[in-house]
Amino acid sequence: MSIRLVKETARRLLKECDTFVFDCDGVLWKGADVIPGAPLMIKHLKAAGIRTLFLTNNSMKSRSDYAERFAGMGFEGVAEEDIISSAYVASEYLAAQLPAGSGVFVCGASGIYRELEKVGLKPCKPFEEEYKGKAWDLHEVESIPLDNNVKAVLCGLDIHMSYPKIATASRYIKNNRAMFVATNADSTLPVKTGFLPGAGSCVSSISRVTGQEPIVTGKPSVDPLASILNVAAQLYDRKRSSNVAPFHPSRALMVGDRVDTDMMFGRQAGMRTLLVLSGVATEEHVQEHTSEIDYVTSDLGEFVHYISDV
Amino acid sequence: MSIRLVKETARRLLKECDTFVFDCDGVLWKGADVIPGAPLMIKHLKAAGIRTLFLTNNSMKSRSDYAERFAGMGFEGVAEEDIISSAYVASEYLAAQLPAGSGVFVCGASGIYRELEKVGLKPCKPFEEEYKGKAWDLHEVESIPLDNNVKAVLCGLDIHMSYPKIATASRYIKNNRAMFVATNADSTLPVKTGFLPGAGSCVSSISRVTGQEPIVTGKPSVDPLASILNVAAQLYDRKRSSNVAPFHPSRALMVGDRVDTDMMFGRQAGMRTLLVLSGVATEEHVQEHTSEIDYVTSDLGEFVHYISDV
Repeated sequence: MSIRLVKETARRLLKECDTFVFDCDGVLWKGADVIPGAPLMIKHLKAAGIRTLFLTNNSMKSRSDYAERFAGMGFEGVAEEDIISSAYVASEYLAAQLPAGSGVFVCGASGIYRELEKVGLKPCKPFEEEYKGKAWDLHEVESIPLDNNVKAVLCGLDIHMSYPKIATASRYIKNNRAMFVATNADSTLPVKTGFLPGAGSCVSSISRVTGQEPIVTGKPSVDPLASILNVAAQLYDRKRSSNVAPFHPSRALMVGDRVDTDMMFGRQAGMRTLLVLSGVATEEHVQEHTSEIDYVTSDLGEFVHYISDV
Repeated sequence: MSIRLVKETARRLLKECDTFVFDCDGVLWKGADVIPGAPLMIKHLKAAGIRTLFLTNNSMKSRSDYAERFAGMGFEGVAEEDIISSAYVASEYLAAQLPAGSGVFVCGASGIYRELEKVGLKPCKPFEEEYKGKAWDLHEVESIPLDNNVKAVLCGLDIHMSYPKIATASRYIKNNRAMFVATNADSTLPVKTGFLPGAGSCVSSISRVTGQEPIVTGKPSVDPLASILNVAAQLYDRKRSSNVAPFHPSRALMVGDRVDTDMMFGRQAGMRTLLVLSGVATEEHVQEHTSEIDYVTSDLGEFVHYISDV
């Protein structure tokens, strides 16, 4: 049974957890709107000496883009190193697997390209720029030249996904034995008016052709995300000369708005989990997924209300 | 154990089967090349009073396009009505389910549009023409207007598949409760240099977003394909004043080059099955799928060689 957050529970969590890991969209903000109370919540945690880290499956922006977004929305003291995006995790993972300078065929947005470059890999020129305005027939798709330096296909949410691009990614994987990595596998991207296809839709079109499932580096996958989270916690301590105990999942709280990504990751990584109802999940999810959710609260505004006079 | 075709078996099949149902690509031709002996095989069967029907998962052409192709490749006496394409079956199926004049959002090629028009449904203007040359952002994709007359999404192999198109198809299915039908779900399209994404790749990107699997009207699905095959056999008889017994699967032979579509359909529809090795399947498939394959031969040239002095 999930525990509804009240003043007493909220304050106990602050004593028992030295690390709070936050999902971003649906938790801190929703689209362009800040969730009321969220910046204050982060401020309170920092003042209480609690590590605050941010874990997002969104692969569209780079970590430096995110740092700017945090500042612009009124979150104080959030550094690039505190933010762990799926594009960053995927890039770190690929850098550990491939020789420096290896080519990567990308299905995704600019955030992925920037993170790959930062770790010394070479993303191909975006497919849609390479073949801008081209009208295709099947024979031309079949004849697209492959670059032998490409050792991996990295797929995220890609607004430029197209049949020729799916074909080329699939040929890299099957013909050239390129690694197949996905930033995340979310089926949908929630938007104001409903939903759009998530990264999982782009990924599944390639999986279906190749018969291969990708290595997923976003939530709810634990590996390699959990180890990168650990590294991020160490960097956080070094930067702030923190004197809390070294990071350990049992003393960490995963705060998120989705069961299938945030709560699943938190549970499988050995963390406590707090579901906020300000994003995707509803009361129904709370009833259905009691084993993944330790705590529930309506939003961070409620949480900070309970702890604000600590 | 599958039986390798020899002279005796080939001639016995001719006595015991009054209907031969052929897959096209990989059986009668391979890309632009006719399989040697295939036109002669069809000619012999017709001369022997055996029904010859043609069943293809390819949804790119209409049945009249196909009839022209048969004639151009030297196959004599093949009428439009003898050809059962997945686009035709899907259109017949939708016409039976929806009010006349209903709109259909199509992910696929011209063959689908023509078959839909023939049964009195209204395919939307192709998405790629409607938004030709447009550069998209996520907000614009989210704001694409939906047509309330659209009652179904029909998906086949679509060289114009794109993120905005996947999004729109998914919104029709989830928001407007449109039916979701696929001409077929082949994972790949075999081509000379290897493979391209098949209809199944286009379909799976939508399935992943909507959480819904489509009704598949192509092989290996039995329903509604088997009943339309039955109707085609009756038309065949009427046109040719045939005096063989009414069509029955137990006296029909399914001839194809793929186990996962042709052999599976033949088996599940209660027909005998003959695998030809002139297309996708290899000797390895023969060893692995003995329960789906009754007979095996290298190609139709070998078959006609055995029966040519009947």
